[in-house]
Amino acid sequence: MADQIRIAIAGHGNLGRGVETAIPKNPDMKLVGIYTRRAPEMVTPSLAGTPVFSMADLPDHADRIDVLILCGGSKEDLPEQGPRLAALFNTVDSFDTHARIPEYFAAVDAAAQANGRTALISVGWDPGMFSINRVIGEALLPDGATYTFWGDGLSQGHSDAVRRVPGVTDAVQYTRPIPEAVDLVRSAARPVLTTREKHRRECFVVLMDGADAEAVRQAIVTMPHYFDEYDTEVHFISAEEMDENHRAMPHGGFVIRSGNTSSANAQVIEYSLKLDSNPEFTSAVLVAYARATHRLARMGQHGAKTVFDVAPGLLSPKSAAQLRAEQL
Amino acid sequence: MADQIRIAIAGHGNLGRGVETAIPKNPDMKLVGIYTRRAPEMVTPSLAGTPVFSMADLPDHADRIDVLILCGGSKEDLPEQGPRLAALFNTVDSFDTHARIPEYFAAVDAAAQANGRTALISVGWDPGMFSINRVIGEALLPDGATYTFWGDGLSQGHSDAVRRVPGVTDAVQYTRPIPEAVDLVRSAARPVLTTREKHRRECFVVLMDGADAEAVRQAIVTMPHYFDEYDTEVHFISAEEMDENHRAMPHGGFVIRSGNTSSANAQVIEYSLKLDSNPEFTSAVLVAYARATHRLARMGQHGAKTVFDVAPGLLSPKSAAQLRAEQL
Repeated sequence: MADQIRIAIAGHGNLGRGVETAIPKNPDMKLVGIYTRRAPEMVTPSLAGTPVFSMADLPDHADRIDVLILCGGSKEDLPEQGPRLAALFNTVDSFDTHARIPEYFAAVDAAAQANGRTALISVGWDPGMFSINRVIGEALLPDGATYTFWGDGLSQGHSDAVRRVPGVTDAVQYTRPIPEAVDLVRSAARPVLTTREKHRRECFVVLMDGADAEAVRQAIVTMPHYFDEYDTEVHFISAEEMDENHRAMPHGGFVIRSGNTSSANAQVIEYSLKLDSNPEFTSAVLVAYARATHRLARMGQHGAKTVFDVAPGLLSPKSAAQLRAEQL
Repeated sequence: MADQIRIAIAGHGNLGRGVETAIPKNPDMKLVGIYTRRAPEMVTPSLAGTPVFSMADLPDHADRIDVLILCGGSKEDLPEQGPRLAALFNTVDSFDTHARIPEYFAAVDAAAQANGRTALISVGWDPGMFSINRVIGEALLPDGATYTFWGDGLSQGHSDAVRRVPGVTDAVQYTRPIPEAVDLVRSAARPVLTTREKHRRECFVVLMDGADAEAVRQAIVTMPHYFDEYDTEVHFISAEEMDENHRAMPHGGFVIRSGNTSSANAQVIEYSLKLDSNPEFTSAVLVAYARATHRLARMGQHGAKTVFDVAPGLLSPKSAAQLRAEQL
């Protein structure tokens, strides 16, 4: 296609590989490059023929790329890369440190505005699709309550936290919503639920030789912020069992808005995701929003944006007339 | 509030009454009038003090109203009212004859464009929230299939069709999704389902004195388009039982997008509604979109629009900065 959207990837971890996998499913796009901090020859693209460049080449490639998808992490990579690259490219990223979104938005917005670029931040499923459903649910049912449940799924942040406990070689952590709480919310009862009543946590841990299992268990279940407010189960397993049963990255969850339109009538809205692969789904969301970013940039809507600023039709390759005729 | 959005209602049926109920739950809005084709003194507003006017007064009241919510029916009222009133007001309507949306859009668009107005058409839950989820689901998971299920719920169009059968005094029809089909779709199996495999229909009928029950049953279950492609159960009940058990208007359903991001990984997105009152929920959606319409009009985005053109943030009374800080 002559007018395919030229997409490039900055960073080749789980998310970058997910974007690579997603692009061929979108015929209006082509992948024009993978940019890495490693030596380019060390990176094997999953699609044969995709050129791999050094991240340092990016400033020279501004005219080759319509949208650059930033696939780095929120902790170390994006706070630096986001503003710097939004001065040079239209970008999409999955910045997910909720508490720091306002300052990240401001930094990216300043860079993008000053250079006539469009930068869509915090795209994915949470922040992202879940956020949209929280906002719409509250707007439709102002007299109501919103509940977000996560899981069953593997939490990367919590798995990392467990891996840092002395005596631990490897670990994964699963977040599980508590079925009784979910049922109560779905019944329109609008319960007030504590953190402990909504989710429980389950850890699978490989110990170092000679580590004290009970000390490790105590260190995990009492860890502030991560585990102390939850009921946490810890299972000790072998390295073999870890490799066999815990390498997939399933996740998901649901956003429920329960409200009343009148005293007689309760209404319940639920949005749910059941994901075999968390990073592949996040990448698929990034790719659809790259299409919207390209369109916003062409419409002259520059600066930082979020999913709240993107009309649903901009995500689809179909024209507005086709969407009205076929999908309204 | 000095800068409340001034909302008016055209048509005081179920939807109009639902809008009346919804407005007080939205402190940034006020209801400035109900316009009716009946004699205004025949209409009792549910909120004491709401002025009631004749529909004929509308052209003289253009400077009193920010957004006019059209609460008439899609069959008789909106095809005439929609274009005529979009020349005078910013409007929102729930036009739901799917097959005629393109021509309705064109007529409303011409009137609104020519007069610098913004007219949001086909707002509600289907068309409306379900449409958004069909479009976003397909954009996120292009390799996939979309399924829409309706119910359990009372279908007004089908109930009307049964009431027109000779020998019937009163009737209601419930649409029910078939649980086995729903489970199969949720499992990511992407089944191909016939109409009969997705939903069944259940009718509760009050017969006229002396009517032939078996003839009525036959006329219902073989009715083209409405019932012939479904398994339909017909129950004959008394007028008393009808009044006692079948006056509520529950509805709902779900949109499921099932797709693969890679051959190994299936992802399932589900949006579901469980509604005690179909018209009150539709009205709540109309009111939230009236806010967005007011904003689009102020931004100079004139002409006909659909839910596909409305960014989620425009539905919320909160500022973009507040949404980013609190709900992203």
